[in-house]
Amino acid sequence: MPSTNKKKIINDPVWGFIAIKNEECFDLIEHPYFQRLRRIKQLGLTHLVYPGALHTRFHHSLGAMHLMGQALEVIKAKGTHISEEESLAACLAILLHDLGHGPFSHALETTIVSGVSHEELTDLFLAELSHEFKGLELALRMFRDEYPRQFFSSLIAGQLDMDRLDYLRRDSFFTGVSEGQVGSERLIKMLNVQDDTLVVDEKGLLSVEHFLSARRIMYWQVYLHKTVLAAESLLINILRRAQYLAAQGAQLFATPHFFRFLRKQYSLADFLDDPTLLHSFARIDDFDVFSSIKAWTEHEDRILSSLSRYLVDRKLFRIYQSSQPFEKEFIDNFSHTVER
Amino acid sequence: MPSTNKKKIINDPVWGFIAIKNEECFDLIEHPYFQRLRRIKQLGLTHLVYPGALHTRFHHSLGAMHLMGQALEVIKAKGTHISEEESLAACLAILLHDLGHGPFSHALETTIVSGVSHEELTDLFLAELSHEFKGLELALRMFRDEYPRQFFSSLIAGQLDMDRLDYLRRDSFFTGVSEGQVGSERLIKMLNVQDDTLVVDEKGLLSVEHFLSARRIMYWQVYLHKTVLAAESLLINILRRAQYLAAQGAQLFATPHFFRFLRKQYSLADFLDDPTLLHSFARIDDFDVFSSIKAWTEHEDRILSSLSRYLVDRKLFRIYQSSQPFEKEFIDNFSHTVER
Amino acid sequence: MPSTNKKKIINDPVWGFIAIKNEECFDLIEHPYFQRLRRIKQLGLTHLVYPGALHTRFHHSLGAMHLMGQALEVIKAKGTHISEEESLAACLAILLHDLGHGPFSHALETTIVSGVSHEELTDLFLAELSHEFKGLELALRMFRDEYPRQFFSSLIAGQLDMDRLDYLRRDSFFTGVSEGQVGSERLIKMLNVQDDTLVVDEKGLLSVEHFLSARRIMYWQVYLHKTVLAAESLLINILRRAQYLAAQGAQLFATPHFFRFLRKQYSLADFLDDPTLLHSFARIDDFDVFSSIKAWTEHEDRILSSLSRYLVDRKLFRIYQSSQPFEKEFIDNFSHTVER
Amino acid sequence: MPSTNKKKIINDPVWGFIAIKNEECFDLIEHPYFQRLRRIKQLGLTHLVYPGALHTRFHHSLGAMHLMGQALEVIKAKGTHISEEESLAACLAILLHDLGHGPFSHALETTIVSGVSHEELTDLFLAELSHEFKGLELALRMFRDEYPRQFFSSLIAGQLDMDRLDYLRRDSFFTGVSEGQVGSERLIKMLNVQDDTLVVDEKGLLSVEHFLSARRIMYWQVYLHKTVLAAESLLINILRRAQYLAAQGAQLFATPHFFRFLRKQYSLADFLDDPTLLHSFARIDDFDVFSSIKAWTEHEDRILSSLSRYLVDRKLFRIYQSSQPFEKEFIDNFSHTVER
Repeated sequence: MPSTNKKKIINDPVWGFIAIKNEECFDLIEHPYFQRLRRIKQLGLTHLVYPGALHTRFHHSLGAMHLMGQALEVIKAKGTHISEEESLAACLAILLHDLGHGPFSHALETTIVSGVSHEELTDLFLAELSHEFKGLELALRMFRDEYPRQFFSSLIAGQLDMDRLDYLRRDSFFTGVSEGQVGSERLIKMLNVQDDTLVVDEKGLLSVEHFLSARRIMYWQVYLHKTVLAAESLLINILRRAQYLAAQGAQLFATPHFFRFLRKQYSLADFLDDPTLLHSFARIDDFDVFSSIKAWTEHEDRILSSLSRYLVDRKLFRIYQSSQPFEKEFIDNFSHTVER
Repeated sequence: MPSTNKKKIINDPVWGFIAIKNEECFDLIEHPYFQRLRRIKQLGLTHLVYPGALHTRFHHSLGAMHLMGQALEVIKAKGTHISEEESLAACLAILLHDLGHGPFSHALETTIVSGVSHEELTDLFLAELSHEFKGLELALRMFRDEYPRQFFSSLIAGQLDMDRLDYLRRDSFFTGVSEGQVGSERLIKMLNVQDDTLVVDEKGLLSVEHFLSARRIMYWQVYLHKTVLAAESLLINILRRAQYLAAQGAQLFATPHFFRFLRKQYSLADFLDDPTLLHSFARIDDFDVFSSIKAWTEHEDRILSSLSRYLVDRKLFRIYQSSQPFEKEFIDNFSHTVER
Repeated sequence: MPSTNKKKIINDPVWGFIAIKNEECFDLIEHPYFQRLRRIKQLGLTHLVYPGALHTRFHHSLGAMHLMGQALEVIKAKGTHISEEESLAACLAILLHDLGHGPFSHALETTIVSGVSHEELTDLFLAELSHEFKGLELALRMFRDEYPRQFFSSLIAGQLDMDRLDYLRRDSFFTGVSEGQVGSERLIKMLNVQDDTLVVDEKGLLSVEHFLSARRIMYWQVYLHKTVLAAESLLINILRRAQYLAAQGAQLFATPHFFRFLRKQYSLADFLDDPTLLHSFARIDDFDVFSSIKAWTEHEDRILSSLSRYLVDRKLFRIYQSSQPFEKEFIDNFSHTVER
Repeated sequence: MPSTNKKKIINDPVWGFIAIKNEECFDLIEHPYFQRLRRIKQLGLTHLVYPGALHTRFHHSLGAMHLMGQALEVIKAKGTHISEEESLAACLAILLHDLGHGPFSHALETTIVSGVSHEELTDLFLAELSHEFKGLELALRMFRDEYPRQFFSSLIAGQLDMDRLDYLRRDSFFTGVSEGQVGSERLIKMLNVQDDTLVVDEKGLLSVEHFLSARRIMYWQVYLHKTVLAAESLLINILRRAQYLAAQGAQLFATPHFFRFLRKQYSLADFLDDPTLLHSFARIDDFDVFSSIKAWTEHEDRILSSLSRYLVDRKLFRIYQSSQPFEKEFIDNFSHTVER
């Protein structure tokens, strides 16, 4: 029995209410590829420092779609014509921009699928979805910056795109780092289009400056927080060890699709050759990685089990900063401690 | 190398900053039993309806500790003596109140550990921790309502306890259901103690009434939201089917500790007999359950795989409400659809 | 040199940004009759208890216009046709709904212009403005509930009108009584029209209930706060004494137009006979009343000067509440104190 | 009958609740000199651009006192000893820091009491109050930067004083310019004292930078907003014309104490010679100035009445900015318009 009562308004503590304005967007959001983003946290392991930072790429993508709708309205109200078709394509494109992200993106990108960037993966997903969804073609052209009216691409991926305007605000909201709150609403009101190029009205100059300052705060206080980096480094090393053991043929608990990526490294060519690879990738998310790590806390390989336990119980590496090279004694001291 | 630079202030988007004021609380928070609460969502599957509702029992417990500190200060300022030791015990007790919760509490309570309540499990954890942490004894007495100064128990678990004042506000915050926002700060300022009993100052009457109204909103719009209930019902049925298959000896992917609870039902007596049971329980959380369900989407048992896929891809049961019994034809219609 | 760069977006800490969407509304807002509302506080003397409550009927009227725009959009999106002309009229009508308010409304209504209600005064203003502004005629019909499509009148003045949805939220915001915050956005999303009658969607039931609870909070904690009532009672008695002295021919400092209303009482018939009366009324606001009272603190009439000083220096009456009649001794005690 | 039930908690939409913690502060707040600040808007005529900006120096001073309390607690918790007496003095000093402000400060300072700065006037008030309030002496020393523990003066008037941390946040709140919101709470948590000098913890560096960025936003978007400057310039010219006419002996409606300052210019020496001057100054506020201007809209001097009408009806000067000198024709064009 098909759903007819499609829920079209979603509560968002950041923007209030997000309305899904057309069927195409609704259907795309319902697709398993998009629903998967519900299980990929926007900020990876940041919640180990900021416990509220559990929001997902699903929620962020909806927020970016919401802002896209507002930006297009502002631009239209200032006299630039935008067709129904273009509106829809822009909304689809921004919805889809994060589709290629894997669990704990950064860690995965350098270990699990080290040969393929998340942009390339997004492209693979879009190519597949375009068979199912007509109307996606224009979205794809905007996404790949191949559409002549260049401002659409700028709204999707540019210096002041809807992606950033959502995630900076959302990350500030969920971490509680209120100083990083960018004035997205005001910036959007200042957007304009000149010769199909996205510009900011002159009186928005200061807002742009303040946006850069808030963004810098977010980088130093959140994205590059030393404890967050320590946790990510730990995660990467856990995955490397697991890959090493898998390559050796060791027994290793892992969810089936995840194991595929532990055992072997794949290139973009592999993905193009074997479509089931993308399907496997589409089945893995934060849950696979973390529940496997949890199981590894009891693995017989002492390195794997120790590192895994450190992450699960939040015994993170500590970072020492120094403007001078560390003295030998200082380093030796650590080596001895570790050896014991 | 022991951590000496203990981080004692935590960003909380709900209350601003939460300060951890003493070493005992800090050490308890560091304990793996408490860290595990980072992986148990406060609201189970509610995020399928309200995508922001991913906050955890870890965050909630810290928030409740924060409010406890404020409540004790208010009460002291109004003339009731509270000793250092009592203060500490009250903070420990509120920190620990949720320790016994398992993943997706309600579903678990009626399926996986159906014989043991989460309060009993909390008690088991507290008993074990009391060997490691001295000073926990008074906390335990307050927790079990055995301490003569009764208002401490009321602050931990009563009609207007710090648990509720945090979770109602926090749930309202993360769901974005702003109407459910209770005036916790004002209510706390109205608290008082008379003959060791917790009371509310007369001028707080209206605030209490409004609290009840906001709470009712939260029940109807969030806790008892029909789609949330549908998702929980789905989850319970998935687990029941998995237990059924496990009992039959079927192959079933599951993280090891989780599998223990799938294969067999345990009673409180079992937990008391075999301490490793509690240790297994302490290793399972939302990740184990959900990553197993994800693997089951490809299980050969068609019932298990279908139900699992419904949950993972968010194809939820629909609820039809009627003040009249449904007509046979209406029901038959569904049966036929399902049969096909 | 006429203003061509009409500023069309106004910052509002309550609703974010208020856009003035058409020229007619802009011109009306620029009119001295509307600008006068800048000098009439929404909550009279409430700021003596809640120091933030200095917001004006000007700001409130803009906010109500903003909500009207949103309500009309919601209703249109649900399928009710609304013409451009009706939209404009509804916005004009809600903008104008408070035009007849004098300074410290309640005090004035029972003393200074005791014979004419603020609704009648609003009507007089609208009648005059309708000569200057064409298009106001339909607004007038809506305002007077004479337009057949009844829901417009309900949006302007009904149980859930835009007036209330703005002022309750605004009063909550500026007083800081956060419990009184009504969920105006959600309520507006729940509005609908059936047979030209304003209705609320069924799932908005709880929101309406919560709205009533929040409103009750505002009544008890703000509008009927005993210290606010004490201040208003003081103000009324000051004005009565001033009128009494003016009637006796005493010298009395007052701004010229204000003095006209001190010296003599006017009826609606007087206003209709002599148009200059309305013009005088249009020149008085909170500033006239309060600066006169400040001058009266040094008046030779001891009653007038004492009462005035009480108000200016915030030495307010105290209210004693009792469920029993006060005993004679209690009252005598006060009489003696006052006599001395 | 003396007030015994002193209200000690004040609702503040900016900081939540402000507690008045001791009797001395309470009594000072009750004093007519302090109550007068209720009638002096923090931002003068800014509300003509940002209609919410009606908050007063009274409210701001309470907010600054609130932050002072928090800052002292933070500093104490980090190990600097602060005596009860010092705490009290610091709170009194910050409460009093704005006492010398007249209505529409900037306009007054350059016209009405052009010979005396608001700091000198504050000093005069403090000197007088110190007869009534013992304990004010230490506050005075801190205020005048004569107390050896220099950080107290820095908290009262320095680069990161409680004055700024309150007014920037408060002005941002009431104008609705949310980008100007400084992270006052976090900055206060980063304060520390080294050798009796106020410092900021190293990890607060970025917060300081962001504070400066937010402050710059406030300057450009609020304090130096061209329409606000136009309104202030208009006000100054009205007052100059009124002084000119008063000096000529023209009839001029004005509240009595205000008239004293229109008729004649006073120097600091005059204030020291004749104590009634300070008392007169203490009786004038925004109400006197604005209600007089309202009366002047009908004055027979055409310049005074025109300018006054412009302000009252908000027909403000327009500002033309150019990086080149304006051409003669452009200017002549205006001259002709004005002449007509």
